[in-house]
Amino acid sequence: MSIIDALKWRYATKKMSGQAVPQEKVDQIIEAAHLAPTSSGLQPFRVIVITNPELKEKILPIAYGQPQITAASHLLVFAAWDNYTEERIRSVFSNAAKERGLPDETPSDYEVQLTGNYVTRPEEVNFIHAAKQAYIGFGMAIAEAAALEVDATPMEGFNSDELDALLGLRERGLRSVTILPLGYRATEGDWLVNLKKVRTPLSQFVIEFN
Amino acid sequence: MSIIDALKWRYATKKMSGQAVPQEKVDQIIEAAHLAPTSSGLQPFRVIVITNPELKEKILPIAYGQPQITAASHLLVFAAWDNYTEERIRSVFSNAAKERGLPDETPSDYEVQLTGNYVTRPEEVNFIHAAKQAYIGFGMAIAEAAALEVDATPMEGFNSDELDALLGLRERGLRSVTILPLGYRATEGDWLVNLKKVRTPLSQFVIEFN
Repeated sequence: MSIIDALKWRYATKKMSGQAVPQEKVDQIIEAAHLAPTSSGLQPFRVIVITNPELKEKILPIAYGQPQITAASHLLVFAAWDNYTEERIRSVFSNAAKERGLPDETPSDYEVQLTGNYVTRPEEVNFIHAAKQAYIGFGMAIAEAAALEVDATPMEGFNSDELDALLGLRERGLRSVTILPLGYRATEGDWLVNLKKVRTPLSQFVIEFN
Repeated sequence: MSIIDALKWRYATKKMSGQAVPQEKVDQIIEAAHLAPTSSGLQPFRVIVITNPELKEKILPIAYGQPQITAASHLLVFAAWDNYTEERIRSVFSNAAKERGLPDETPSDYEVQLTGNYVTRPEEVNFIHAAKQAYIGFGMAIAEAAALEVDATPMEGFNSDELDALLGLRERGLRSVTILPLGYRATEGDWLVNLKKVRTPLSQFVIEFN
């Protein structure tokens, strides 16, 4: 198997048809993000799934009127932890121990060291680190959508503070980082669909030390 | 097609056998990163491919002795642009126009606005933004490796300043962000291979607005 053909098929869909993506496929796209590897396995991000039409209408101006916001049947918002805390880290390690049937009386040396390193860093440094992990999950969701022939538009172009306020994310210790509308391309009205996919020449993209 | 089974198969391989990954598969893994979507299509990162044994030996202490560094047949280093510059942005848009057979006499309004926004931001803000794009490509490479049943170990644990110096990345306008050793699992000596893959419960990972 290879995901290359799927990645060639996908593009940042500019106009969606309004046709709904089946829930089963949405679940698989979320599952890909859920399975994404993250630093120390902390998974310091969450996926918010929005289908509510009124809420999508409210997000539309926050995303500068991009029409996929309301034409998509499902909006995924990737939101990263606003910080690393001892409690959050403990919860992850405790869950792992439980799932693996291992003792969990005292945190391991690894966990103690990790926690000590993280909780002493500035909050913004931790948020940036968590956001980077969210981008791995974001990539996995984009890849899975393409594999399932579901169209998606990776978006950074929105006011994250306003979206956080609308969704109450800060109260959950989260900050939005990206949006992924899911739907199906409306090929007739999409200015990008027929343009050649262009990438930096491979000779510039790859640097070899043989 | 779906990448879920591949993502379940993969894990952060702790011990590699030393068996070499065929170049054809390495090329596909790089191609997945190359096809990754990035903000405004700028692809502000590069993939460095290291097979040289002496160089891997020098990287080993920079990555705190993690044995996959030398046991992997190929090390991929993901390195982001240290900044956005007018020249770099122009190069991307110029290449796209050329590839699409479009006129390229004057930058589009979109490009002018993008350039104006980016080049006035602090260098560190731009580097962080570029690094996030690199993480999308990193995710795609991880997914493709898994799809091809090639083992890989996503790594942030290394001294990026030392790696940049060793590889001369700053002179190229790049800063290393992640390493991805490629190889094959040595199941007998890997403490992680038989542990259950654990993720945050889906009920916590997903937040729905219906």
